[in-house]
Amino acid sequence: MPTMVIIDDPEDMRVAAYRDVRERDLVGRDGLFMAEGLVVLEKMLASSAFRPLSLLIAAKRIDALAPMLAQVPDDVPIFAAAQPVLDAVAGFPLHRGILAIGRRIETPSADALLGSLEGDSDVLLLSAIANHDNMGGIFRNAAAFGVKAILLDADCCDPLYRKAIRVSVGAALLVPFARIERGEDPLALLARHGFDTIALSPTGASMLSDYAPKRRNAVLLGAEGPGLAPELLARVASVRIAMASGFDSLNVATTSGIVLHHLACS
Amino acid sequence: MPTMVIIDDPEDMRVAAYRDVRERDLVGRDGLFMAEGLVVLEKMLASSAFRPLSLLIAAKRIDALAPMLAQVPDDVPIFAAAQPVLDAVAGFPLHRGILAIGRRIETPSADALLGSLEGDSDVLLLSAIANHDNMGGIFRNAAAFGVKAILLDADCCDPLYRKAIRVSVGAALLVPFARIERGEDPLALLARHGFDTIALSPTGASMLSDYAPKRRNAVLLGAEGPGLAPELLARVASVRIAMASGFDSLNVATTSGIVLHHLACS
Repeated sequence: MPTMVIIDDPEDMRVAAYRDVRERDLVGRDGLFMAEGLVVLEKMLASSAFRPLSLLIAAKRIDALAPMLAQVPDDVPIFAAAQPVLDAVAGFPLHRGILAIGRRIETPSADALLGSLEGDSDVLLLSAIANHDNMGGIFRNAAAFGVKAILLDADCCDPLYRKAIRVSVGAALLVPFARIERGEDPLALLARHGFDTIALSPTGASMLSDYAPKRRNAVLLGAEGPGLAPELLARVASVRIAMASGFDSLNVATTSGIVLHHLACS
Repeated sequence: MPTMVIIDDPEDMRVAAYRDVRERDLVGRDGLFMAEGLVVLEKMLASSAFRPLSLLIAAKRIDALAPMLAQVPDDVPIFAAAQPVLDAVAGFPLHRGILAIGRRIETPSADALLGSLEGDSDVLLLSAIANHDNMGGIFRNAAAFGVKAILLDADCCDPLYRKAIRVSVGAALLVPFARIERGEDPLALLARHGFDTIALSPTGASMLSDYAPKRRNAVLLGAEGPGLAPELLARVASVRIAMASGFDSLNVATTSGIVLHHLACS
């Protein structure tokens, strides 16, 4: 059983890392991130790629959370606080009553991650997805359709931002991901690992619904608005989603869902 | 040319309706709503279902907005203010520089709306969609795939909430919608107008990808979590989306995109 520490002063330095969680993010500092809620925490505890550094929970929920708390490693402190103290630390009413600080301990290279995938696989390659809602939505869809890996270019935001994790319903801790270094050629890398890449674009040469998936598929998705860089688009098969005329393109997270459903069902 | 009124005092009563727009919503008051940004405003001006009551714009954008402003009816005041005054009225930095208050002037009954649709048509029936992001996302997808009408049950939020309009990229002003009164039977209504209804549900009897669309399709979507009421589900064909095991269901807006893509391409 891990150590339970009762916190009764919001200024207690042992919970300083949890202060005003809405206003800031831990990402970028030694691979740290903030996990909220039971669903997300359970995914973190189940994964070998992450480990919790500490938990902060509402004291009144200790009993209800016992099954989850039993999975917390012994050397990880669990801070428990009455709801008013919890709210004062977090800086807003923390209805969910569970926060944890986690660390990413496995950060494979894109090459190593692709090398670990055997047999039929679908992966995503994301370019310049800078919006946390979209990033979270894409990870959620990726998990729902069994995507094996997500590659992120240097202009993507971090999937471990608090909001991205929340929108992903924890999928950001479930679907393995890796960064493409600036200057690295993701298309050559994917080809080397046997992936056929298609790019989604409103100006795509053929219709998604006519595309016959291969055994190993990589789907390239770019930010709404600017879209994909022409030099990337020119090097892959591009497909479009049939849409009514006169309306903006789909949201990129929705687009990912439509494409992954097509790959899963064709 | 409509009247241009220069506002130099944030406390000016003529712009009181624009005060602190983030903190409140106009919906529910005589069909009023707040529209933000050029794309949304253009959709409002192009629609016979809505009319602007007034506009509030950044003075520095008057010239750039001239083509849009020329479409504003003569009796609609256009308030123009310097950026600091605009920000003080709105209560936050209003980078987009355009707000408008609109009124919905056509509110057809669900029966009249369905009665106006001829030939092949897809419509949506939404049950208990209470989240503005989801409502906006569903309208955006509906517009992208040419949905002709959206029916909302009594437990749905209003598509004209500010955030729903924004997330819909203006589609809330483009796709006609109507309320189903509490106690009214939407399935009987849809059947009477020749629509075949399918319900999306994680426990659906068959796969969406196997479903052959009819000439007139109605798609029933419910809130995530609680899902659709069993008494509704029992009365229609239900379909599910193939998903990887062990993960939560898809977001309802993403689900709408996947279904509408299937209907459009099968």
